Amino acid sequence: MLITDHIVKSYDDELNRLTAMILEMGQLLEAQLEKVLECLTKGDNKIAQEIVDKDIEVDRLENKIDTSAVRLLALRQPVASDLRNVVAALKISAHLERMADYAVNVSKRVIALNQMGPIKYVSSITRLVRLVQEMIRDVLKAYSQLDDKAAHEIWKRDEEVDELYNGFVRELLTYMMEDPRNISPCIHILFIAKNIERMGDHVTNIAEHIHYLVHGTLWSESRK
Amino acid sequence: MLITDHIVKSYDDELNRLTAMILEMGQLLEAQLEKVLECLTKGDNKIAQEIVDKDIEVDRLENKIDTSAVRLLALRQPVASDLRNVVAALKISAHLERMADYAVNVSKRVIALNQMGPIKYVSSITRLVRLVQEMIRDVLKAYSQLDDKAAHEIWKRDEEVDELYNGFVRELLTYMMEDPRNISPCIHILFIAKNIERMGDHVTNIAEHIHYLVHGTLWSESRK
Repeated sequence: MLITDHIVKSYDDELNRLTAMILEMGQLLEAQLEKVLECLTKGDNKIAQEIVDKDIEVDRLENKIDTSAVRLLALRQPVASDLRNVVAALKISAHLERMADYAVNVSKRVIALNQMGPIKYVSSITRLVRLVQEMIRDVLKAYSQLDDKAAHEIWKRDEEVDELYNGFVRELLTYMMEDPRNISPCIHILFIAKNIERMGDHVTNIAEHIHYLVHGTLWSESRK
Repeated sequence: MLITDHIVKSYDDELNRLTAMILEMGQLLEAQLEKVLECLTKGDNKIAQEIVDKDIEVDRLENKIDTSAVRLLALRQPVASDLRNVVAALKISAHLERMADYAVNVSKRVIALNQMGPIKYVSSITRLVRLVQEMIRDVLKAYSQLDDKAAHEIWKRDEEVDELYNGFVRELLTYMMEDPRNISPCIHILFIAKNIERMGDHVTNIAEHIHYLVHGTLWSESRK
């Protein structure tokens, strides 16, 4: 009886650890995005480089999550909601890793921009970054609380991201038209904005996995 | 005895079906990319729209793969290489789905470009598309044959994709500098090239999953 208790407890611990690692990875991503905002507004190469250097921790955490998930599948053979938990962890970790890659890409472009002179035209991006940052924080909360309704609300906010992004692209186009010397820096800024917008897409993917986690049905099926 | 045989056979069948579905999804993606090439060179809106419409089949196939994989995990509780097979299928299907999304994005940009007049400057992209197309075909073959060496060779070819892409970006910049009227169309073409380049990145991710499938160790660990 004691042994069984121990086994069950340890199994629950492993599942909880998996969730905790996802949240840790999410917090790491949030911190990276905070630095993205800082290096964008200050044009600070040092902070940009810190983001690049920190990415290895994100990758390591993804590997740890994947290894734990596969271990759990092999040794514990989870079913029902436990199984969904593990599968969702495998999927969500991949999304968080990609989002962290986008943060790295932004940082590298900040460094490239700094070589071209003072960074201009980034003020509109800060709103975009703030919005995506909020969505990440909220989707992690929804994940930890298994809150499908909140996940759905976050999913819908991606429209706002797209609108902000499209408006910003139009703005950048005018700067490029005005002066050909703006073209090269503006293309970097354009890709920075695109990277942030893509992060928003990944948040919606995570929201869809929360739906699956809660209901056991795929998001796309439920919306038919 | 007969029943056991049947169970084992059916289990193997399920695993094989999973692999077959991944390959089917890959072939669908290859066909989409062939159409991408056609609509790019011909500037054909009809073909572009076909790509957009076909994407639902890719999504459906991904859902089918995910559902089968989770079913296999729950009912068969695979271990060792069988388990890796299922986990890899979950991961690879996500990459194929994203690549198909990039094909859709390219098609939508072709439609937007057509509204701006005859499509120019795309000849250099065709080489990029051809290269990525080859990489997709080869990585699917490596997956079906569990050929880790081939996967590694494909992984290395992404460098060539990056070089072609970077050269093309420089080329596009000159067209934009030459005439501000080129800016809007060239930005679409720039994003088209970026989408193709990103497909190459996903191929390298799939190659890494093949390594995991064959060796049971993560790619990043083996390269330390």
